[in-house]
Amino acid sequence: MEREKALGIVKEQLTEHRYQHTLGVMETAIELSKRYHADVKKAEIAAIFHDYAKFRPKDEMKQIIINQQMPSDLLIHNTELWHAPVGAFLVKTEVGIEDEEILDAIRFHTSGREKMTLLEKIIFVADYIEPGRHFPGVEEGRKLAKQDLDDALIYALKNTIMFLAKKSQAIYPDTLRTYNSLIFEKKGGILG
Amino acid sequence: MEREKALGIVKEQLTEHRYQHTLGVMETAIELSKRYHADVKKAEIAAIFHDYAKFRPKDEMKQIIINQQMPSDLLIHNTELWHAPVGAFLVKTEVGIEDEEILDAIRFHTSGREKMTLLEKIIFVADYIEPGRHFPGVEEGRKLAKQDLDDALIYALKNTIMFLAKKSQAIYPDTLRTYNSLIFEKKGGILG
Repeated sequence: MEREKALGIVKEQLTEHRYQHTLGVMETAIELSKRYHADVKKAEIAAIFHDYAKFRPKDEMKQIIINQQMPSDLLIHNTELWHAPVGAFLVKTEVGIEDEEILDAIRFHTSGREKMTLLEKIIFVADYIEPGRHFPGVEEGRKLAKQDLDDALIYALKNTIMFLAKKSQAIYPDTLRTYNSLIFEKKGGILG
Repeated sequence: MEREKALGIVKEQLTEHRYQHTLGVMETAIELSKRYHADVKKAEIAAIFHDYAKFRPKDEMKQIIINQQMPSDLLIHNTELWHAPVGAFLVKTEVGIEDEEILDAIRFHTSGREKMTLLEKIIFVADYIEPGRHFPGVEEGRKLAKQDLDDALIYALKNTIMFLAKKSQAIYPDTLRTYNSLIFEKKGGILG
């Protein structure tokens, strides 16, 4: 799909603020794809559609999670997690994108998963560090993303875990699973 | 078992420093048991033996984990976790303590688990806040333990999670599971 057509479709789904964020994720994902030799076109489309379901009513998202038999533990965890798998479903059914690599990059852009593909990592990291993001530590994330994509991913995940723990909020088990799997890959074997 | 006899048995297994820690956990566990109406005698014995396996050789602990079919994910996680389930096993087989409540309190004193018993919570928290502990935030833990045992437990767990994430170390899934379950109990339902 042409970039302009894709942007036109997604613009209708988002607030202006979120649309600007999407453009930032798109630019960053393209940049990372060139740096790490991923499919630039797939990264562009995945980035454009990654937040497609962001503003769907919670009730609609909940029904889709149930009807499509998505992991039911989503329902007891933060609703912020829902738009990613629901987005993958809607981008397929409403927009007609069938490429499973692109859909997986949308599906796992918030929780991550074990054994993430290169494209999934790129969308996850781009979402975290795009130029519109402003939070303490984002510069460190941008620096790491230029050096080592996994390091940037670990950095994003550990900050998310620390942020939620500090606020005494539940942490989605897949987020921890993603984090642990990358730590094990990086350091190998027993850490004790 | 008499306190003096139990202390005599455990003293042989520990360094002097760890023995002093054990005495602190014992005093704290007794205090918490009175406050929260748990079985004081069981708390005393569980506290005395909670670190029984702390200084066993790693190879011996590993063999016990494998032979006794303990959760195999222990083997890829921090070896600091091993002495708790191995301790429960050895306290049963070497010391002859058969009380499953006491053994569970030893078994889960490092990782926690979902649906912890009152005794398990007391040993976990006592281990974290006993008078010999000195780390930033321990005073807050002591304060919480006097107000609400679950709050103190959440506090200990979240600090552990943040500590490990900050150091980019793996986090044992049961630790997260324990934390999440308490958060859900406390706040109820969806957090998003």
